[in-house]
Amino acid sequence: MQKKRMLTGDRPTGPLHLGHYIGSLQNRVKLQETYEQYVMIADGQALTDHFMHPKEIAKHVVELAKDYLSIGINPAQTTILVQSQIPEIAELTLYYLNLVSVSKLERNPTVKYEIAQKGYTSNIPAGFLCYPVNQAADITLFQAEYVPGGSDQLPMIEQTNAIVKRFNKLYNTHILKECQIILSHMPRLVGIDGKAKASKSLGNAISLSDRPEVIKQKVFQMYTDPKHGKVSDPGCIEGNVVFAYLDAFHPDKETVEALKCHYSKGGLGDVTLKNMLNDHLQCLLAPIREKRETLSTHAIREMLYDGNQRARQLASVTMGMVRDAMGIYQ
Amino acid sequence: MQKKRMLTGDRPTGPLHLGHYIGSLQNRVKLQETYEQYVMIADGQALTDHFMHPKEIAKHVVELAKDYLSIGINPAQTTILVQSQIPEIAELTLYYLNLVSVSKLERNPTVKYEIAQKGYTSNIPAGFLCYPVNQAADITLFQAEYVPGGSDQLPMIEQTNAIVKRFNKLYNTHILKECQIILSHMPRLVGIDGKAKASKSLGNAISLSDRPEVIKQKVFQMYTDPKHGKVSDPGCIEGNVVFAYLDAFHPDKETVEALKCHYSKGGLGDVTLKNMLNDHLQCLLAPIREKRETLSTHAIREMLYDGNQRARQLASVTMGMVRDAMGIYQ
Repeated sequence: MQKKRMLTGDRPTGPLHLGHYIGSLQNRVKLQETYEQYVMIADGQALTDHFMHPKEIAKHVVELAKDYLSIGINPAQTTILVQSQIPEIAELTLYYLNLVSVSKLERNPTVKYEIAQKGYTSNIPAGFLCYPVNQAADITLFQAEYVPGGSDQLPMIEQTNAIVKRFNKLYNTHILKECQIILSHMPRLVGIDGKAKASKSLGNAISLSDRPEVIKQKVFQMYTDPKHGKVSDPGCIEGNVVFAYLDAFHPDKETVEALKCHYSKGGLGDVTLKNMLNDHLQCLLAPIREKRETLSTHAIREMLYDGNQRARQLASVTMGMVRDAMGIYQ
Repeated sequence: MQKKRMLTGDRPTGPLHLGHYIGSLQNRVKLQETYEQYVMIADGQALTDHFMHPKEIAKHVVELAKDYLSIGINPAQTTILVQSQIPEIAELTLYYLNLVSVSKLERNPTVKYEIAQKGYTSNIPAGFLCYPVNQAADITLFQAEYVPGGSDQLPMIEQTNAIVKRFNKLYNTHILKECQIILSHMPRLVGIDGKAKASKSLGNAISLSDRPEVIKQKVFQMYTDPKHGKVSDPGCIEGNVVFAYLDAFHPDKETVEALKCHYSKGGLGDVTLKNMLNDHLQCLLAPIREKRETLSTHAIREMLYDGNQRARQLASVTMGMVRDAMGIYQ
């Protein structure tokens, strides 16, 4: 049976970390078995709010691809592509921009939230406001029926499907397919500071490519319970980053429950606990890092070249259908 | 000496008419001698407000090219290209969209005027708001230093140059060149109804491809002086469409002045005057129509194919420079 096609991806703005690992990456390793998976390195989209530093973005393209392969994404099963290398995406984006009103884009809840976060006031870059239309082009160009994501991605899927419906109705066709989200229910991983979710930009995350000593250092920086002064004191589990990571990464739930119980009563020290977490994370990350070290930049660039070629073949088929349906001069 | 490059063009939304002829087309026949002229059939831009009817636009692409050749634009001197066939324009547009704020686009006087005219309120298509950025991509992709146009085009040139300055500063480069307008001082030709300027959409224009009987019919429909009932009555020159056309198309200014004098005093009938104008217009338009009849659609498509190929070569060089300057992954 033909596998259903799925599109996912990341903005290449920094190294992937443990938050990505439990949030999406692990899942992709499974999904490539059952879906025809396309993973897009969204360098064009990254430029909508990083246009000041395109060279940084370009550097992270290769690093991101290394992250993918080191966690087990298999380029023989998954097409990995670089958004900027597929000009059909830009072409389709421009056609879609005619089908969406400015006020609709201004009402997109995810974009509104991001605009507030970034402190854009009267200086919202037009490219940033329009990026959901760019995403609609990504998804439909590759005829993806499934898109994994969190609930913050729902407005993007709705926008995509609104464009699909409008296009099909306007041009009296069925060539574009609506897509569905594969909702990820995995809670977000907290940063080592305990303040916010682990994030590249906040520098509070453990990267998949971190050296062993850096991992240990970050584990020992983790926020625990400031009132847990002596080992014998009872400690608090809530807001304790070490337990959040044990919950996420320790394979044995019962052991973690026993540790929580012990810690709450008193008698379990932060150092013991952090050493335990460190051991687990080192075991998890060592093979990923070792795989990463076998990957040359040259080999990655070749792999991306192949992925882009495959992606462009499909892009060209879809654009042919789009132009035919619209009746564009050709 | 290397000729300076110039870009101009039209939206393929209907047949070109006498207003275009005196406003821009005649000029292009001259300009191709002294400039390296690129003439773009802006079908992509036409879709920003005609996205409901792309097939109509596609049909007019070939007709527009026939109009160009029949008035004397020479494809051996002038590169005629079709915007939708140059995907690099879309690519460059997306990069530029990051360099312009939404509020800046909303303040563009020409776009504001057009939005009011079209009665867009909360439903301004994003593509329409962004079309000045698309124009900036057209101009700079072909490294055009000159753009002919009326004063309504000044905000577009300013927007283009603002993007050029921002790009060059941000990416520490000089690859993009600012452009200058070649201001056309030719007054706009009034429509045959005397109410507004001659326009494809208002149906009050004499097309370059109109049949002789249609030309005559339109001349005889022209608004004159409703109070000029009898031949012997004095007639009014102001607002008299026949005189506006005689001013624009009669080669001998003195003859026109004598006719005005005679008409004002009385004794010169509308029918005599209209016959005279009709004779002139038939003389002007016959060779254009005859040239047009020699042009097969097949030959026009081949000519456009060649123009697009030439244009894409230049587009590819510019995009290479743009990607290098930005440091995009490649």
